[in-house]
Amino acid sequence: MSDFTPTEQTRVKRSYQRAHYDRETLYGIIDAASMCHIGYAIDGQPYVTTTFHWRIGHHIYWHGSSASKMLRHVQKSVPICINITHFDGFVIARSAFHHSANYRTAMLFGAAQKITGTDDKRIALHDMMEHFFPGRLAQLRDHTQQELKATTILKMPIEEAVAKIRTGPPIDDAEDYETAKCWAGVVSIAKPALHAQDDGRLHDGVTPSDDIRHLLAHARL
Amino acid sequence: MSDFTPTEQTRVKRSYQRAHYDRETLYGIIDAASMCHIGYAIDGQPYVTTTFHWRIGHHIYWHGSSASKMLRHVQKSVPICINITHFDGFVIARSAFHHSANYRTAMLFGAAQKITGTDDKRIALHDMMEHFFPGRLAQLRDHTQQELKATTILKMPIEEAVAKIRTGPPIDDAEDYETAKCWAGVVSIAKPALHAQDDGRLHDGVTPSDDIRHLLAHARL
Repeated sequence: MSDFTPTEQTRVKRSYQRAHYDRETLYGIIDAASMCHIGYAIDGQPYVTTTFHWRIGHHIYWHGSSASKMLRHVQKSVPICINITHFDGFVIARSAFHHSANYRTAMLFGAAQKITGTDDKRIALHDMMEHFFPGRLAQLRDHTQQELKATTILKMPIEEAVAKIRTGPPIDDAEDYETAKCWAGVVSIAKPALHAQDDGRLHDGVTPSDDIRHLLAHARL
Repeated sequence: MSDFTPTEQTRVKRSYQRAHYDRETLYGIIDAASMCHIGYAIDGQPYVTTTFHWRIGHHIYWHGSSASKMLRHVQKSVPICINITHFDGFVIARSAFHHSANYRTAMLFGAAQKITGTDDKRIALHDMMEHFFPGRLAQLRDHTQQELKATTILKMPIEEAVAKIRTGPPIDDAEDYETAKCWAGVVSIAKPALHAQDDGRLHDGVTPSDDIRHLLAHARL
């Protein structure tokens, strides 16, 4: 599949066999993570900010305080780059040169669009909460007008993007398989374990609800 | 402590109590990670590239193929931003608005310097291998001249930097503690487990060596 046409930004020239241009692969990487890194430049100075993201259809969303430097800047439709990376393992080779990493990376390019209007912001925040904590929003009070005003939500169409994936064992030089007597392979990194700790201020008898149990089992990490 | 003077880039204005400007805190975050995100801009287009990093003294190092787009660009002493983030937990509050994340982030600003000269490159690669896999290099053949030529190593002095850290439970509105009967607290993210899988091409009797066992116990994640 090739849903995305490679561009100057997204064409992978080296190790091009690691590149994927289909939405299924890309969305799998995006949806398996909770946090992304957003790159932007202010007066030529690059910044990289970490933030939660979520995907609805063919858009990626993120949000934060309306006072955030990142959000105030990137809502101006400037070019940005979003990177989502899963580090899956250390690749341990028979020469220092061929040591590597197994990873899944999504790189997205484009410009942000601001969600405006109270109704659209409410819908976007609802989608976000359902994405991270299905069923939780029904247990909570509504957003106040002040909270909505204090929150900026952005989205970006996923149109220019590439996934890069490395899997599998080291690829060593033929001679090194013969002569190197060292251990070689992959030290893989499992999905981390989660642990719920209440804040000690719960009402009597409250235990983790379905949304928390869902998070413990299915967090996007 | 305040080893770093806040600048236009590093001064944290919102949630300023989360900011730290001392080397001990910053180096702790850098050293606890293997991978960083490097932000740079080419003709105004931002990019974010994920790569291994390591720290020696007051410099951060990274490397890769001499053909790498990122390395070819940032070695020109252009301004860059390096972000290293540990995502430590989901903060689950009594209102949607106060949901948050626990995290440790290091942001570094500056410009890269290229390691030139075969001897200096060998030293830098030696330091890198010892950083990630102490004792491994002694088991491997030397770098060839061709491999050294194919590898670019960069470093950046750590002079303009800030750490941002959030820990602890949600901070809810006073009224919500009274009225919200939901679960609230932190779903923390443990350090992931590691697993060593050889590539099936080991010489007879080879088992994971000390460097691999060290990685399994102490990987920077």
